[in-house]
Amino acid sequence: MNAVGVDVGGTKIAAGVVSAEGKILAGVRRPTPHTPEKLVGAIVDAIGEVMDGQEVGGVCLAVPGLILAQERKVVFSPNLHAIEGIPLEERVAPELGVPLTIENDANAAAWGEFRFGAGSEVDHLVFVTLGTGIGGGVISHGVLLRGAQGSGGELGHVTIHATGPRCACGNRGCLEALASGTAIGRRAREAAVERPDSALGRIAARRGVLGEDVTELAREGDEMAISVLEETGTWLGIGLAGFVNVFNPEVVAVGGGAMAAGDLILAPARREIHLRARPPSRDLAVVQPATLGPESGVLGAAALARGADGEYVLGL
Amino acid sequence: MNAVGVDVGGTKIAAGVVSAEGKILAGVRRPTPHTPEKLVGAIVDAIGEVMDGQEVGGVCLAVPGLILAQERKVVFSPNLHAIEGIPLEERVAPELGVPLTIENDANAAAWGEFRFGAGSEVDHLVFVTLGTGIGGGVISHGVLLRGAQGSGGELGHVTIHATGPRCACGNRGCLEALASGTAIGRRAREAAVERPDSALGRIAARRGVLGEDVTELAREGDEMAISVLEETGTWLGIGLAGFVNVFNPEVVAVGGGAMAAGDLILAPARREIHLRARPPSRDLAVVQPATLGPESGVLGAAALARGADGEYVLGL
Repeated sequence: MNAVGVDVGGTKIAAGVVSAEGKILAGVRRPTPHTPEKLVGAIVDAIGEVMDGQEVGGVCLAVPGLILAQERKVVFSPNLHAIEGIPLEERVAPELGVPLTIENDANAAAWGEFRFGAGSEVDHLVFVTLGTGIGGGVISHGVLLRGAQGSGGELGHVTIHATGPRCACGNRGCLEALASGTAIGRRAREAAVERPDSALGRIAARRGVLGEDVTELAREGDEMAISVLEETGTWLGIGLAGFVNVFNPEVVAVGGGAMAAGDLILAPARREIHLRARPPSRDLAVVQPATLGPESGVLGAAALARGADGEYVLGL
Repeated sequence: MNAVGVDVGGTKIAAGVVSAEGKILAGVRRPTPHTPEKLVGAIVDAIGEVMDGQEVGGVCLAVPGLILAQERKVVFSPNLHAIEGIPLEERVAPELGVPLTIENDANAAAWGEFRFGAGSEVDHLVFVTLGTGIGGGVISHGVLLRGAQGSGGELGHVTIHATGPRCACGNRGCLEALASGTAIGRRAREAAVERPDSALGRIAARRGVLGEDVTELAREGDEMAISVLEETGTWLGIGLAGFVNVFNPEVVAVGGGAMAAGDLILAPARREIHLRARPPSRDLAVVQPATLGPESGVLGAAALARGADGEYVLGL
């Protein structure tokens, strides 16, 4: 039986019918409305459209922010405030005719990589995604670590430098504040101010510097851009080293927009992990790019959908 | 059926026959030899002595340091080098007549608290022990997180301050380097040097300052001692806040010798968790002392012993 995965993002809603082999058989995509009523309507419409005429065993909504799984609602969603507090079960499930599951989006993406991507051969996977923020998810002994309320897996919000920069979450020195795409942009702007005659400086004189500019310049050999990515990768490695010691994973998969920089970020991260993590965990963990790309959300959500019997529709 | 738990420590070996209710029915304790041959002999003797005349379904050795579970050996044990590399299965199991399991000591203690102590009512427990170092273990969704090789759960070795003090593991700014009993001693000695006229300074003039001195003085209201424990508790809280965000646990239990200081350490830790962790995880987690004391090792090891059928002898 197939399942529907829905990835509810701050800018778009993507829904897909997914097979047990991880193939997206049908998909829809629409912009995310930012009022609660329209948001629920758009989610229901997207599911209805993609399910039309298909036999499906269950649906899973991957939602951004911190969830209370028992109450099937999001309590805090910095990029999609409209979703906060909506009783999603009550509002969405009656329209479906099949069971509805609700999960955090980063946990769903991690599960997608575990079932169909970078972690498909292993039992222990740490997944982080470097975007505006840092999301994450952990599979340990084949179990997705949701935590007691479904709010676990917040890998971006561990302190790695107590006196570090302020994070969007209000804390200081979170991994997210030091190694996200936003952190890359901040470092690039600082570098541009310091050296206005540099390539980054010349871009900054015309318009805002983007993460993509840094990656492009670094690929062309620009030393300042390379050093921005190196610094970011080093901080990423400091965080990942802790996860390696705590989870002793076989694979650490890194996804998200900032991974366009590839080894320009991952090589310094691996170096730092080698310095900071301990054998044998340090020597086991393979640090690699995630393989599913932006579809990890839909695939992972579908793989987390549960049927009427309470089991994963797509199996394990 | 009962099981035998063996806690192999740097100074003593404790073995006990444990019932399914977590009662120690018989126990022995002997000093730890520090040569491989004598160490194996002492472990075998301790087990033989405690098993004598008892019906037992399995034995578990809780060993210090980093283990390779598949090879049943310890690869790195800073406080008991003699155990490194011994093929424990081959050397100990033939003497027993029942299956032998090998686990990391801190993971075993965490499992003890989960089965019989601070975590006995919950499915999600983070356990840390503050001694010379910081050990730890995590139970998530009722599963002990050993990791792929049995080396997971190294909660003391996550970086919480990248430029922090050097840790015994070689890294900088680990939780262990900032919040262990050793860190308390270091802060107390620094304070004593800075203010030789203080109570800590007067002790330091006669002999080395111990962690116990700090706790005793703090209980008597000595402000310098209180501030040493507060600083330590704050760093502990910085680390625990990350674990709260990652694991979304119901209980965070803190054990080990330094917990003689109780709320003098836990109150500042709770304050810091409240500042740094995110709702709803932050509001769920109860941060409390571990309840089993030094017997958590023997109890946890026994609860991890597996029988001939591969199941936990003491059940779940």
